[in-house]
Amino acid sequence: MGLVSLYDTTLRDGAQGEGISFSLDDKLKIVYRLDELGIDYIEGGWPGSNPKDEEFFKKVRNLKLNNARIVAFSSTRRPGIKVENDSNILKLLEAGVDTVTIFAKSWDFHVTHALEITLDDNLDLIFDTVSFLKDKGLKVFFDAEHFFDGFEANPDYTLKTILTAQDAGADLIVLCDTNGGQLTSQIENTIKKVKEKVSVPLGIHLHNDGGLGVANSLAAYENGISQIQGTIGGIGERCGNADLCSIIPALKVKYNEDVITEEQLSKLKSVYHYVMEIANLIPQNQTPYVGRSAFTHKGGIHVSALQKNPATYEHIEPEKVGNRRRVLVSELSGKSNLKYKLKELGFNIDNFTKAELSRLTKKIKFLEHKGYQFEGADASFNLLVNREYGNHKPFFTVNDFKIISHNSGEMTNSEAVIKLVVNNEKVHVAAEGDGPVNALDNALRKGLRTFFPEIKNMKLIDYKVRVLNGDRGTAAKVRVLIETSNGEDTWTTVGVSTNIIQASWQALIDSIEYGLLIHEKKLE
Amino acid sequence: MGLVSLYDTTLRDGAQGEGISFSLDDKLKIVYRLDELGIDYIEGGWPGSNPKDEEFFKKVRNLKLNNARIVAFSSTRRPGIKVENDSNILKLLEAGVDTVTIFAKSWDFHVTHALEITLDDNLDLIFDTVSFLKDKGLKVFFDAEHFFDGFEANPDYTLKTILTAQDAGADLIVLCDTNGGQLTSQIENTIKKVKEKVSVPLGIHLHNDGGLGVANSLAAYENGISQIQGTIGGIGERCGNADLCSIIPALKVKYNEDVITEEQLSKLKSVYHYVMEIANLIPQNQTPYVGRSAFTHKGGIHVSALQKNPATYEHIEPEKVGNRRRVLVSELSGKSNLKYKLKELGFNIDNFTKAELSRLTKKIKFLEHKGYQFEGADASFNLLVNREYGNHKPFFTVNDFKIISHNSGEMTNSEAVIKLVVNNEKVHVAAEGDGPVNALDNALRKGLRTFFPEIKNMKLIDYKVRVLNGDRGTAAKVRVLIETSNGEDTWTTVGVSTNIIQASWQALIDSIEYGLLIHEKKLE
Repeated sequence: MGLVSLYDTTLRDGAQGEGISFSLDDKLKIVYRLDELGIDYIEGGWPGSNPKDEEFFKKVRNLKLNNARIVAFSSTRRPGIKVENDSNILKLLEAGVDTVTIFAKSWDFHVTHALEITLDDNLDLIFDTVSFLKDKGLKVFFDAEHFFDGFEANPDYTLKTILTAQDAGADLIVLCDTNGGQLTSQIENTIKKVKEKVSVPLGIHLHNDGGLGVANSLAAYENGISQIQGTIGGIGERCGNADLCSIIPALKVKYNEDVITEEQLSKLKSVYHYVMEIANLIPQNQTPYVGRSAFTHKGGIHVSALQKNPATYEHIEPEKVGNRRRVLVSELSGKSNLKYKLKELGFNIDNFTKAELSRLTKKIKFLEHKGYQFEGADASFNLLVNREYGNHKPFFTVNDFKIISHNSGEMTNSEAVIKLVVNNEKVHVAAEGDGPVNALDNALRKGLRTFFPEIKNMKLIDYKVRVLNGDRGTAAKVRVLIETSNGEDTWTTVGVSTNIIQASWQALIDSIEYGLLIHEKKLE
Repeated sequence: MGLVSLYDTTLRDGAQGEGISFSLDDKLKIVYRLDELGIDYIEGGWPGSNPKDEEFFKKVRNLKLNNARIVAFSSTRRPGIKVENDSNILKLLEAGVDTVTIFAKSWDFHVTHALEITLDDNLDLIFDTVSFLKDKGLKVFFDAEHFFDGFEANPDYTLKTILTAQDAGADLIVLCDTNGGQLTSQIENTIKKVKEKVSVPLGIHLHNDGGLGVANSLAAYENGISQIQGTIGGIGERCGNADLCSIIPALKVKYNEDVITEEQLSKLKSVYHYVMEIANLIPQNQTPYVGRSAFTHKGGIHVSALQKNPATYEHIEPEKVGNRRRVLVSELSGKSNLKYKLKELGFNIDNFTKAELSRLTKKIKFLEHKGYQFEGADASFNLLVNREYGNHKPFFTVNDFKIISHNSGEMTNSEAVIKLVVNNEKVHVAAEGDGPVNALDNALRKGLRTFFPEIKNMKLIDYKVRVLNGDRGTAAKVRVLIETSNGEDTWTTVGVSTNIIQASWQALIDSIEYGLLIHEKKLE
């Protein structure tokens, strides 16, 4: 941790984003990745608000984390109830964490119009809640909701709310721009004024409604804030929260602030893509630092200058954040990427002639243009190279298959029939499944099982469908990614077609083929 | 035009974004919309760089514009050639515009390493080009490429480049952060220093590689800049340009700067969506001001407060930028969201008993627990309520369907057979399609067409598949979202099942059913 700590609220405030619904398992997986990234505090949820969050705090204790602390979130006690009898507050204690974040109203308008209590009563809620939790030995972060808007409307009262939290023993006071509409200069001026009155360290929690979430967080940092809150990819309600994926590299690379290590920073891009994937959001190519296009060059002048020196058109080295330079419509960049990738997969570059490399580059470009994506599908890429240049013979061939899906009422049954050839033997199998692709998978395994008993260890662990050109509706092209595991290794394969069955089939065949290939190699 | 002018470069710098390729017709259509929005200067292209841009300047003269001036872009003359013989410069004159923008290198490193000429020769290029064009009676904007990075490296030389342009008669000097990596405080400090040395008005052209494009533009505005350049939706190379869709409303609403009229501002959202559509980019829901989610509320606490007063959780009124408030119904939300939503969908809340509301909330929670998601599927939600509490009779019923997908080689053909009942009439239809769901869609439409001719106007515009519990591989549960449009309205429906066919079917039925329902309501 540098002078400033990083506080991630992807799992709580981020989950308020439209279309986002994390399962318990999703949340635990994300915690693990955030910890690897070097985040200091991970806000896991609001145990009092729903059973899923309550369960989360039970499960998260079993994760072995390197550095991150898990934080439980709650509002101040409810009006008209003693803090020790408030079930939300008691659930915070049950959560078994050592740090909690309590949010309270700090804008008088919200106290009287939303909470509908007196201004003094609100101060009581704050004092009671913070001092109760401090008495229990917890570290308490105090979120002053709507702080900046409140400060403009009634600075005296807004200051009173945070001074009350300070008096009650809060360890950190977090100034929130809950509506996300503050200008950078407003944020700066307010922080300067607050720092004159408050002795407890300050944190910042900003939303992005004006497109200024990152800039305002950095301005707060320049004005001596001790903690920055945000979410991965800036996900969150409305226009989202301040994006940690832009804030972290700015702090580390531009301000030389040691918030995370260089090795951790190099995981940023993959954490971003991981969270987007789990949130079922499409990663934005243009996203600063971590987007696919962030270091992608198209203009001819730019590309020519880049070859002389990358600093001509890049503000940082892409590798620092785990990203890479891409050059569009350029044979040269294609080849260096390819070489890099071939090496990575264990091929000996010296065995490839110049013509072979060039043909392979063209083939990949052709396939990527069709919608394939080998970045996330190493196994399919490996098979592609093996088929073209290795001496790989397929373990089986499929002549033909048919799937019949029959619906009545709310039930749809799917049945697949496949004709295979394995070791010159014809195999004709049929199987049912939960859907057309599951039926196909079941039939294929049934047909191969006697020839390759190892197939029973291979399990499909993930199946993803992405519509590539959504604007053509159900006739759009789809990309299917299948992740398979044999208990030891995990691999991903890809298929693309306008027909989801065909796309799934390609990925399925590759997944089994690759599993058999690595099994065979292990026996050698 | 206020004290500061707006300069749009969507058609030139924006077109450098990955995957963007505007046709001549696209460009003309966008000019028309930008003019309606009240943009002062529209950079149409670089006539010397390609025939399409040259043609553009011929055609654009025929457009009747209210306010906007079309600007032609070019570099300074080429080294070793007289300005009056440089074909690029001559094409600027042929473009028939009264304003041109000339860009030049202002970072010494670029002059010597990219352009590969001496520093003095570069000053000659600048002086010759600007004075030649001024002699021809043109207004000349001078883009100082890489100004900010150059100023850090060698402030004396960088200043010399713009002072040379000033001496040659440039009307405006545009400071560019071409690599987009400048911090807000750096931009401010540099502008302050430059203003001490330069008497010509300054403009600003910023990129978004640090996620600070908007903030830096506004900081420049606060420091007395006279022109702000940017693109619609921030499209452009790498992480794009500064986003005018965030800059304009901030200037107008937050700084009370009269850049465009209120009526023009109310067109902002539609211009954003229009440009995204033409650029074939997916509009980002989270985009500040103009995104679909920009004023969308999910948390129960927020919605309850909003009903008391919208300013509680909105930084500006959504209508100002042509957007609207949306409230989501989800497991996270309570009764206040449901009530709001019911009202929005035209139901009379008073007709619901407390018990009914409570049953409806439970039903939604139950369905969401099963994997449904109504926050993105208004139409399915509407039908759910109508089926339970309205007097909605389905327009058709389906007894049975069957889909056969047959594969040979790399081709999969899908065929659907459906038995329907419409107006007590039995219909038995079959159709082929690009995939099983497309076949189903085609067959359903074929069967309904004679009864409901309006169905031909309904088009499926998006189809999304989300695997809910990916760790069960191809047998996982899937959620399908279908977006449909009749050219006027757009609606989304949802289906969930372990069988993708069944899930798609549910969403498909709802999409048609809802389309017929709103058509019927319009006739009433």
